Parts: sequence; C-alpha cells; structure tokens
Amino acid sequence: MEKHPVLIVGGSGMAGGELLRILAGHPSFTLAGVVSRGRAGHPVAAVHPHLRPDFPDTAFISPAEAEEMEPDLVFLALPHGSSAPVIRGWLDRGARVVDLAADVRLRSIERYERWYGAPHPDPALLDEAVYGLPELHRDEIRGARLVSGVGCNATAAILALAPLARAGVVTEARIEARVGSSEGGSRPSEGSHHPFRSRSLRMFEPFAHRHLAEVSQETGLPENSLTLGVTAVENVRGVQAVATITLAEPLREADLWKLYRGAYGHEPFVFVCPARPAHLRLPDPRLVMGSNRALVGFALHPDGRRLTAVCAIDNLLKGASGTAVQAANLLLGCPETAGLEMRPVYPA
Amino acid sequence: MEKHPVLIVGGSGMAGGELLRILAGHPSFTLAGVVSRGRAGHPVAAVHPHLRPDFPDTAFISPAEAEEMEPDLVFLALPHGSSAPVIRGWLDRGARVVDLAADVRLRSIERYERWYGAPHPDPALLDEAVYGLPELHRDEIRGARLVSGVGCNATAAILALAPLARAGVVTEARIEARVGSSEGGSRPSEGSHHPFRSRSLRMFEPFAHRHLAEVSQETGLPENSLTLGVTAVENVRGVQAVATITLAEPLREADLWKLYRGAYGHEPFVFVCPARPAHLRLPDPRLVMGSNRALVGFALHPDGRRLTAVCAIDNLLKGASGTAVQAANLLLGCPETAGLEMRPVYPA
Amino acid sequence: MEKHPVLIVGGSGMAGGELLRILAGHPSFTLAGVVSRGRAGHPVAAVHPHLRPDFPDTAFISPAEAEEMEPDLVFLALPHGSSAPVIRGWLDRGARVVDLAADVRLRSIERYERWYGAPHPDPALLDEAVYGLPELHRDEIRGARLVSGVGCNATAAILALAPLARAGVVTEARIEARVGSSEGGSRPSEGSHHPFRSRSLRMFEPFAHRHLAEVSQETGLPENSLTLGVTAVENVRGVQAVATITLAEPLREADLWKLYRGAYGHEPFVFVCPARPAHLRLPDPRLVMGSNRALVGFALHPDGRRLTAVCAIDNLLKGASGTAVQAANLLLGCPETAGLEMRPVYPA
Amino acid sequence: MEKHPVLIVGGSGMAGGELLRILAGHPSFTLAGVVSRGRAGHPVAAVHPHLRPDFPDTAFISPAEAEEMEPDLVFLALPHGSSAPVIRGWLDRGARVVDLAADVRLRSIERYERWYGAPHPDPALLDEAVYGLPELHRDEIRGARLVSGVGCNATAAILALAPLARAGVVTEARIEARVGSSEGGSRPSEGSHHPFRSRSLRMFEPFAHRHLAEVSQETGLPENSLTLGVTAVENVRGVQAVATITLAEPLREADLWKLYRGAYGHEPFVFVCPARPAHLRLPDPRLVMGSNRALVGFALHPDGRRLTAVCAIDNLLKGASGTAVQAANLLLGCPETAGLEMRPVYPA
Repeated sequence: MEKHPVLIVGGSGMAGGELLRILAGHPSFTLAGVVSRGRAGHPVAAVHPHLRPDFPDTAFISPAEAEEMEPDLVFLALPHGSSAPVIRGWLDRGARVVDLAADVRLRSIERYERWYGAPHPDPALLDEAVYGLPELHRDEIRGARLVSGVGCNATAAILALAPLARAGVVTEARIEARVGSSEGGSRPSEGSHHPFRSRSLRMFEPFAHRHLAEVSQETGLPENSLTLGVTAVENVRGVQAVATITLAEPLREADLWKLYRGAYGHEPFVFVCPARPAHLRLPDPRLVMGSNRALVGFALHPDGRRLTAVCAIDNLLKGASGTAVQAANLLLGCPETAGLEMRPVYPA
Repeated sequence: MEKHPVLIVGGSGMAGGELLRILAGHPSFTLAGVVSRGRAGHPVAAVHPHLRPDFPDTAFISPAEAEEMEPDLVFLALPHGSSAPVIRGWLDRGARVVDLAADVRLRSIERYERWYGAPHPDPALLDEAVYGLPELHRDEIRGARLVSGVGCNATAAILALAPLARAGVVTEARIEARVGSSEGGSRPSEGSHHPFRSRSLRMFEPFAHRHLAEVSQETGLPENSLTLGVTAVENVRGVQAVATITLAEPLREADLWKLYRGAYGHEPFVFVCPARPAHLRLPDPRLVMGSNRALVGFALHPDGRRLTAVCAIDNLLKGASGTAVQAANLLLGCPETAGLEMRPVYPA
Repeated sequence: MEKHPVLIVGGSGMAGGELLRILAGHPSFTLAGVVSRGRAGHPVAAVHPHLRPDFPDTAFISPAEAEEMEPDLVFLALPHGSSAPVIRGWLDRGARVVDLAADVRLRSIERYERWYGAPHPDPALLDEAVYGLPELHRDEIRGARLVSGVGCNATAAILALAPLARAGVVTEARIEARVGSSEGGSRPSEGSHHPFRSRSLRMFEPFAHRHLAEVSQETGLPENSLTLGVTAVENVRGVQAVATITLAEPLREADLWKLYRGAYGHEPFVFVCPARPAHLRLPDPRLVMGSNRALVGFALHPDGRRLTAVCAIDNLLKGASGTAVQAANLLLGCPETAGLEMRPVYPA
Repeated sequence: MEKHPVLIVGGSGMAGGELLRILAGHPSFTLAGVVSRGRAGHPVAAVHPHLRPDFPDTAFISPAEAEEMEPDLVFLALPHGSSAPVIRGWLDRGARVVDLAADVRLRSIERYERWYGAPHPDPALLDEAVYGLPELHRDEIRGARLVSGVGCNATAAILALAPLARAGVVTEARIEARVGSSEGGSRPSEGSHHPFRSRSLRMFEPFAHRHLAEVSQETGLPENSLTLGVTAVENVRGVQAVATITLAEPLREADLWKLYRGAYGHEPFVFVCPARPAHLRLPDPRLVMGSNRALVGFALHPDGRRLTAVCAIDNLLKGASGTAVQAANLLLGCPETAGLEMRPVYPA
C-alpha cells in the first residue's frame, strides 16, 4: 500500500517534534517535508536531538519550498492566531488539514472573539472545521476536510466531564489543570526558568483559562457553571485535570460507573480507572507518559453530591500531536490507532 | 540569662531533626538531651548528617537516661498513639510538654475516637491540652502546662480558612493539601520509593484525611461542610492547602482583604500575599521553604461567591517543629520568634 | 507466521515490567505466561498499573504452573544468585534462556567468586553462556542456548570503552556511572526514600562496583587499569557512564572518530554523537529515555592524552530488558530490532 | 554598638538576593541601600518575593542615588566585566569593596587576558585586590580595601585540592563541577528552560571552564596539570566538585587525614567528612544547602595513587554571597561568622 505523504508546518516546536516522533513510526504516512520559517535549511536533528537517528539527513524547509509539494494532509503547528491563511491555502490546493493551534477550535464567532480578544480572520473556517477529538466527533471527522487540534487542558477536562455533562447531572464544576513545563512550548521565559520553575506549585490562572471556552462548547455545560484554573507543577509532560463537581442530585457510585463505562468502554485510548487500589483511582499522568492514552477516574463523597473527577494525559500526545494523528488517521481512512501504539514509559 | 534546658523525646525522625536544627541556634534554650529508644547510644550525626557540625559529640539517650534529667520543657515527637503515658510522666515531674503527635490535638473524646478508631488512653489530657497554634490560642498557651503540636495539613488549611470561618461566610470548603515527601516521615515505604514517588501527582485521599477533625475543631466549620484531600507532589518540603470555597453570599474583594488583614496584620509569621504580581497571589510553598512563615492568599471569582483560598507552609517548620518551638517560647516566657528567624531559602 | 511463545520468570520487578511493555508490542513473540512466586494469582495490572490496558486480564502464575508450558524462550528476571537451577531446568526442557541477572555474565569462575563472594552453584553454565550484548557477540548469540543479560552500568561503560580498548590505546580509565533510581529495583530502602534520594548526588561506591568485572571481561582491559564508581542522581531512568581516560600515546580527534564510527557505524541501536552542538557532544541519558538506543560521545583534551568518553542509555531498556529482547530476537531468528523500535520520549 | 552601613550594587540577581537574605539577619551590618540600574524605583519584594516580610517597603535605588550614601562597605554583584570603574569610584570615596564578579579575582594580568579574552580595564586593581576566600587569605583580607569574590566552582575545587596541593602530592587532577541551575543566574535561556534543563546531565564544558584559572592561582597547581569541566544537574542550588586525582607517589589514608584535618580542623565553615557511613564520605551538596558550610571528603584507591576528592557547597552562599559576607566581616572587624550561622535545610 502506498503511504500518504503528509506535511508538517511549524515543525521546530514541541508539538512539531512529537509529530515527527510519531510519523517516524507510522505505518501509513510518509513525511513529505517539515516546514520551519525560522530554521529552514537547518537539520531537524539540531532542534530535536533525540530524533537524529530517525532523521539523520532531514532539514527544515521554507514555506515556499513546501508549496511545491502535494501532501494528502497537512499538520499545522503554528503559534495561535497565525493559522487561518495557511489553512485556506492548503484547503484550496486539495489537502486535508489538521490545525493544532486554537484558531479553528471554537464554532461560535462570538465566543472566539470574546476569549481571544480579536476578530477572527476567516470566520468561514469556524463553520467548516470539526473539533478534532475523535472520542466526541469520530464520524464528523471522517468526512471532514478541516479538523482542529485540541487544547491540552481542554482535552483532559472534557474527557473527565463529558459523560456527566451528557447525563445532565452537573450543577457546577471547578477544574484545575496541573500542567508540566512542556505545555509552555520551547521558548524560554522567566516562568520557565529552571530555578523558578523547578518544583513549583504556581497557580497562575485560578478561574478563566482560555481552554474553558472549548470545555463549555464540547460538554455543553454553560460557561458560568465552570471555572478552569491552571497550576504549574514539576513535571515536564502531563496534564492532570481535576474537576471539583457539585452534582444536581445525589447519585450512587454505580450510576457513575455506568456513565463512564458507557462513554469509554469501547474507546481505544481512554480507560476508566478501577476502584482499587485506592491510590490509583484518581489517575496520575505518569501512568500515561509517552503514550496517547487518557486515564479517567472519579471519587464520590458519601453524600452522593460532591464528586471529584480526574483525567490524566500526556499533553504532547493525547493533548496535542497524538490526538492530531488520531484525527488524521480518520481523515485518511487508516486504522484510528495507526502509529499511536506507544505504551507508557513507567516508572520514568 | 540562664538558658532553659529542654528535652526532645523521639529525636530520630524528621520532626526531631528539625527541632535539633532550631535548638542549635535558639538563644534561650539549651538541649538537655535527645531521646531515641531505637538509636540510644548512637551519634545524632549518624541520623541527621547535616547537623554534624552542630552536634559533633552528641549521642541519643535512652528513655531511662532521660528520666535523670530535669528539663523545663519536653518536646515529644513520637509516633501517633504513643504519647499519652509519656506526657503524663513529664507533667507529673513538673515539666511543660509540647506533644507533636496527634494524641492531644482534639478536645472532644467522641471526635478523637471517631477519627482515630480507638478509645483515648488518657482522656483527661484532652481536657487540659491547648491546641498549639499561637495564631489562634496565644493567650491560652502562655498559661498552659500541655500544648499539642499541629497537623501540617491542618495548619495550612486552618490558616487559609480561619478569617472566613470566624466571619461566618463559608457554606462549603473542599480542601486539597499538596504535600512533599517529608510529610511521610523517615521510614521508607512503597509510596515513598523514589521511582514511584518522583514527580507524582498521587491523590491518595480525596475527601477525609484525619486532619479534617482539627480543621473543623479550630475553624468551627461543621465537618460535613468540609472535605480534606491529600495529594503527593514532587517536593520534599512544603504543604500548599488549596480551599475551593462556596461563600454564603456574594462578597467583594475589599471585604476579604479586611478579613485577612484583620486576622494576620500583626502576626510575626503569617503574611497575606498582595494582589500583584498575579502569579504570586496564591502562594507557592517554595517561598517559605526553610522558614517558619506561612503565606496566605486568595482569589475571588467575579461572581463574588466562588473563592479560592490558599496557604503555603514548610511542613517541618510551621507545620510541625517550628510551631512547636513558637508555642514553647510562649510557655517559657521567651519572645515568640526566638530561634525562629530563619529566612526562606529561595530559589532552592 | 506463528509467534514464538515466551515466558517471563520474575515478572513483578522493574525489568519484568519493561519486558512486558516490550512484549505487548512485539510482532513475533507472544506471552506464554509471567511468573511471580510472590504474586501468583494477582493481576499483572496491580503491579504494573501503566500496562492495565495491555494486560487487562492477565495474572501472574506460579513457578509450578509455568512448568506446564512449552515456551521457545524464557526470560529470567530473578534476584542475583537465584537463577542457576532455573536456567538448568529450562535448558533441559529445550527452551532457550536469557538470564537478566548477574549469574552467568562472567566467563571465569575465579572472577565470579572473587566479585560475588561465593562459589558458583553451576559452573558449567559459565562455560556455555554467551554475554548478551549483541554489539560484541552477535554471531555467538545466534547459535547459543543460553545468553546472559547485561549489567546496566557495565553496558554503558563497555560501549564507551570498547572501540578504544580494541585499539589498545587505553592506559587507564576511571569510570563513573550516574544512575537513576530505577536501577535499584522496586523494593523500597532508606537509600531510595524520596526525601533522601530526591536531587541527591550520592557517590556511594567510588572505585569498585561489581560491574567492573564485566567491563574488564568484555573490553579486555585489566581490572587494575579500571575503576568503576556509581553515583545516584535525580533521574528515575538512565545511566550516564563517564570514563576519564588516560591514553597510551597522544591521539588526534580524527583517530577517535575512526575508531568509534568503525565500531558503531552499522549498529542499529548505538549512535555516535556529532561534534556539534558542543553541549550535546557528551550524551545525556534524557535523549534516549524510553528507547533501546545508546548514545556514545567523546571529548579529547588538546594534549591528545586526556580523553573523556561517555555513553548514555536507558537502564531498563538498553541496560536490561531491551538488550535482553535484542538477544532473544537473535536467538529465535527474528529481525534484531523487532519490538524495539520505540523512539525516545523527549523532553520528558 | 552602631551597625556598619553597607551597600549592595547589583541587587536584582540571585547573588544580590542572597546578600539581602543574609543582611536581613546580620547583627552588625545595616542595609544602606540596594542598587539596580534596571529596577530602580521598584520594590525589592517584586524581584525577591521570598523576602517581602523582611523588606516590605524597600525599593531599589539608582546608581546616582547610591552616590549620596556613605557606606562602610560596598558589595558589587554586577555582571562580569563591568565592575572595574565602580570599584575605583567607591575605593576613592573611602569605602571598602567586595566585588563578587570575576573582575579582580586573578593576580596576573596575563592570565586574566588569556582567560577572559580582553585587556583588563584597570590593571592596578589586580595588584591591590585580595582573593576573598578567608580559608586561604584570612590575614590579608583583614588589612585590605578591596577583596574579590570567589568563583563558585573554583571555591569547591580549591577547597578539595588545597591541602593536597600545598603538600606537593598532586600530579594531575581532572575536576568536574556538578552545578545547580541557580549558578546560571536569573536570566532565562534555552539552557535553563525547564523542559530542557529538568533532570539533565549536561556536560557542557569538559576541560577548561574559566574558573580553572582561579583554581590554578590559588592552589599553585600548574594549569596544564588541571582540567575543570562543568555538568548541569537537576538541583537548583549546590556545587559538587569531584576531583579525579593522580598522586605523585602512593599515600596511605592516614596521610590524607592529616593533610585535610590540618587544613580545616579549625575552620568555622569547612568540615571534613568522616569515613563512616560510607555513602556520606564523599559529600552531597544537599547536606549544606541553605548554609555557608563546605563539606570536604576523599576516597583513596587501594593502590594509594588514585584518589577522589570532593567538596560540596551551596553555590549562592559559600560559593558567592556567604563567602563575600565572611570576607566583609573580616574587613570590618566583626566576628567571621556573623550573620552566617544558618544551618542546612535538610531534607529539602
């Protein structure tokens, strides 16, 4: 079988590096090229040194060089706000597009402008795009031309909440995403400076991280029933979304098992933690590190009304590049798990 | 001025080591002896190697040897459940006692038995003891013979909640204490094994950690309005108690400043974080590491009803040995801050 | 093609977990069973929670149950000193054996007894066994019945030194292996207790770690020209062997490139670091974490006589289970890289 | 007794922060002012948030404002290369000066120019300055006007080597300084970016770190008998200098004890590690973290010729600001340990 040529645009960042790692082992995709405006002509291995054996002779190409190519699919891993014209260009040239940035994740123009503080450069793209989380939009993705990536914090929060939200049992959820330093990307800042970041428990956004817009859109929970905070923790990889939930009416644990198992029992990448052992019931992102898996767990207070639901993912895989490849597999008719069968590296 | 001879019973654990570190620099206390049943005769420096220059020739003594001494005050740092007879013995011999274990923290026998699952061996001690948090019981401690230590998670939770609880504005608080590995003491276990503990985000107790009993007692908030979970994080030292609060009625930020500044404005060890810079408003325990200080901060949702209050301490100092010495200073008529002026080591 | 049934004996430790992770994705092996004397009957997922999705229903079996099976190959991951009778049993029943312990790594009985301080229980096994490092013994492994595993520190040291040793240019090498905490296995100890182990730089064996015997055997360098120390560092995974070498006569950098490229230019898992960028020339184990790769690099002092050579591996993969599977592939006639194509997880 | 007014110039960096922490508790010094060109007018607490309770109302002042002051002593914590004119100015105005930068550490103009690659702006300062390590230059410092700071890696290496060098027993020493991230200062860079720096073992300078010039000068060992490499490790604070030494002739362990105890037996801040327990014989910087102490230890190979000597310090204290205050105490006739009695924070 001939492999699908795919192109990565914005390959010098961390999501780009993780796409390259996945593509190096993908059975049905072949790398047509990897674009970096700033690094064109430089070896990929200079930026992603762990991939030197996989790409010993590959160099980044310029956007202009990329236009000579005819990929079946393009992954865009550009800074937020700069994808729209590039998306439009590749759609017009007949490629399918998965855009990892936030640019086409929201369906509502009003919501986009409120959360991102600027008019959208190409609102028609919002109509066309499908939110790229296969667990929620598998069939729509299969027929689409344009799929968004997913927010890493949003993905973890959505997977923790979706089964409850669908059942209409959530009155209020206050979510805290505990995030590793790779979430901030590859550009150094004071916040990422090792002496300041190491072992930190820095709660830099208590209520209204932008991914809240995605969580509301995808769960259907009204924005004012949600808060989403982000706390920087020691890890490099990993998101642990912890939802402190008030239920509309008291539930029994069996009700919750039914909701979660119903939602995820057949998913290839989402797993519900068993009740035992107790210390693993609410999942730790270490247990999925290096894989495209999500673990979801919950603990119900004896009053049946106070609930903690948790989802753990690797932010660079299930929270970004892994889910993007999962969607690309659907777009191109490949098995959904192709290239994504890496198992977690633990302990690490 | 003659120094007060003080005795440490249970000096081979982490709280014992921290007491020794403080006493090595205390201007008004002198170490009468340090007892360890298991290590009697062994050098202190073999167990606490960082203190070799401070105690080059000191050895642990046996309980029997300790009975020859006439200390003004005894610190007990024994395993929970074993303090009662030792307390009684030293009280009878005229010494003042600070018991760092949980044995005399609760005033209610019923509550003790419910949370600790056993009858109390000497209930009269519960009547006599004062909860040893000077910020709440300064005057009672001054006149007491017996003062309890404080739970580290409890201390952080109490300091975050007390000003609100006193004002009667809290409907519900769900507290998560994020704790370093030194909280578990010096005995290795599977949970403390480095490959498993490193970088963990292990939520091993979501709702009902035992310190909840202390938090309820000291804040006056009913137990059923509270949950207290504990999450193991990467740090060695530090507790960050995060209270996710529902207020009884909408408040303004100015109301909260008034409550917190009113409560802590004159405290020598408790500081309220300013509103700016935003990323330091909710305090990180790194900023108090190595000191007896507590930082308290809060963030109010625009709806005036959802509140996050946070307190950060060093669990071995403000959460254990530091507060114990602070109470001992009051018991013996010394300045409250004597021996406790260590400043935080940051970045570290 | 029918898959080879393989058995793991001693599956509850870290090397056993890593074997399971590899076998879950191996194209030509199938797991016949996984033995644990202490955990027989318990689910594999209770011990290796990250592998629950891969082995949802597998339980450990007892040694007696294992005897019912007819595996093509047996991996032994037992504590050092206990393999010999088990090896003998499986050889007699016609299986090939890879023994990850130290029991059959040395060829000389004298050397074994000197370093392990006890007579060998079955000296004939030392005659038969092949040291299981394919980079040195590929052809012998292919024809063998019994292959040893490799010491993790030894592997890193051997790969750093072998090209030099073969060329006869080494007068003296002092090696320091910097090791992560997973090297100590899954049993907690004071040394692995997180408060003591975290961020440590503990040099617990300066000159004569037992793996020195393997390094001498495999490089041919006399024991008295070598020292091997071990230093515990913060990482969970990874060995970085740093050899501080005195060369017999001044060499030029080009000579060294020739030796290293000659040795490893065609190896599937060993890569020589390029001279640029300078900070990656001496390899960091983070760049191979989660993979079976080894990185080797060197820096020559301008005097041509003082040399630093470094090898970085993941101790659980190239330093244990990965190399064991690589050898098993050779033993069973599979492609050497089968099941071992995992790429490093970086940054992590 | 009236306190000595002292001034800090360059107070916004990490060495400046540590000077402030020490001065906040110094019994004989009072802070005249803290200068920061870039931050003049901003609160000290905005840059050093852990010191807010100590300096609630202090703001940085400009260099011009500082000229209004009449400090007894000035600490300069400026970037390397910019101290000379500032030193000259303060000396002319009658203040004593401790310059923490590298500008006046070397006595030889030739050596300065060779290692720093530029002519010295004011060579007479090199003649006048005393190298500010009291353990080597106590009496000269007492009578000086100008004292240099010390290189952190150099300090650790010098303390490990000096007793041996004085005795003339060293043929060759290859030194590796393992350093925490605070050594790089407070400015973010790609190398300090948490995802890349976390858990790294990055050997970025194998042979010729600039501090080698200081080590050679202060030990008298010829430059070509030394190498000094630097390896970045996980810690935030701490330097562990490991010297891999070849002795001129075989020595016995007793000889070495005599040299080290002779050198450091009466030092207030340098301690020789005892032979037992073995795992603490070669010191770990964790055991001095937060203090001005240095630990020195050694291990001799049975051949009597191969020696490992190690020194561990906190780079911001004994490696920078602590030693600077120690020298200032001597310059102003205070007890050498004044303000420096902080004990190590361990475990942390």
